[in-house]
Amino acid sequence: MTEARAVSASGGLALLQQCLRAKLQVKPEEEQEEAQFVQIDRGMVIYICFFKGATDDILPKMMSSLLNLRLCESVSGKMVSVLDLPGSVLIVPQATLGGKVKGRAMQYHNNIGKEDGKRLYDAFVSLCEKEVTSEEVTVKHGTYGNRQVLNMDTNGPYTHLMEF
Amino acid sequence: MTEARAVSASGGLALLQQCLRAKLQVKPEEEQEEAQFVQIDRGMVIYICFFKGATDDILPKMMSSLLNLRLCESVSGKMVSVLDLPGSVLIVPQATLGGKVKGRAMQYHNNIGKEDGKRLYDAFVSLCEKEVTSEEVTVKHGTYGNRQVLNMDTNGPYTHLMEF
Repeated sequence: MTEARAVSASGGLALLQQCLRAKLQVKPEEEQEEAQFVQIDRGMVIYICFFKGATDDILPKMMSSLLNLRLCESVSGKMVSVLDLPGSVLIVPQATLGGKVKGRAMQYHNNIGKEDGKRLYDAFVSLCEKEVTSEEVTVKHGTYGNRQVLNMDTNGPYTHLMEF
Repeated sequence: MTEARAVSASGGLALLQQCLRAKLQVKPEEEQEEAQFVQIDRGMVIYICFFKGATDDILPKMMSSLLNLRLCESVSGKMVSVLDLPGSVLIVPQATLGGKVKGRAMQYHNNIGKEDGKRLYDAFVSLCEKEVTSEEVTVKHGTYGNRQVLNMDTNGPYTHLMEF
């Protein structure tokens, strides 16, 4: 059982799932306040994890690859990018993706530190926000370091994985 | 953009997401028939992809690792396995996980052939069904080769990745 190991990538890992609707809690309910959510309709959920040693250099390539890959099924059945669909993007920080199996638990020794991770994550979100310019669609994102509470409807999550 | 590459594993890849409820369409709507679904409540969604050359040898280890890893948050906040929670399991075939970037498209040359993939997938499902014996929970699964239409509520998908 301990032989199974998680994937190791150099800079970061992105997981993509196509969605019809995705809703992420960005602030939990508190005494006097209701929970807060962000939501997208048709588009793509991008889960992001950075590893130790990741630098800003990889961000433009990540953004360009993820937004231009033809992974979205258009109405005519043709595969197009989320930019061409056009679809919205929900970016979810997901440090758990960097876990490696150690016995019956997961360890995260390869993950980037919290401050660097937050900086890279925020920079990645900004790059995506600049690239998604169609008025019909939007970029939403979770808060780095928070628990991510996600509800999602898909037409097949059609899950893809990319290393950077 | 073409430098980004997807993860390559030897036998198979499993992606795990924790869920509060997950519902998978297993048969699409047809003229005289409504769509059919399987559903679990609290538990874990296991997305499975096999690569070329994968054999039955890896299945017992996969099953044992995935069901015994402490990835589920119990009511008391302690991390326990899906077997100990106890939680249900939804197994989703997800060949897209084996994709590698080629230009702006994904290629699946490393994926196992359809017949071998179906055989391994069905055998993996059987192994899980034998292991999940608590009466409170259940194992549900999608059909290999079909489009997987998934709806999911989570308390943080808490996504993990394992190679086999």
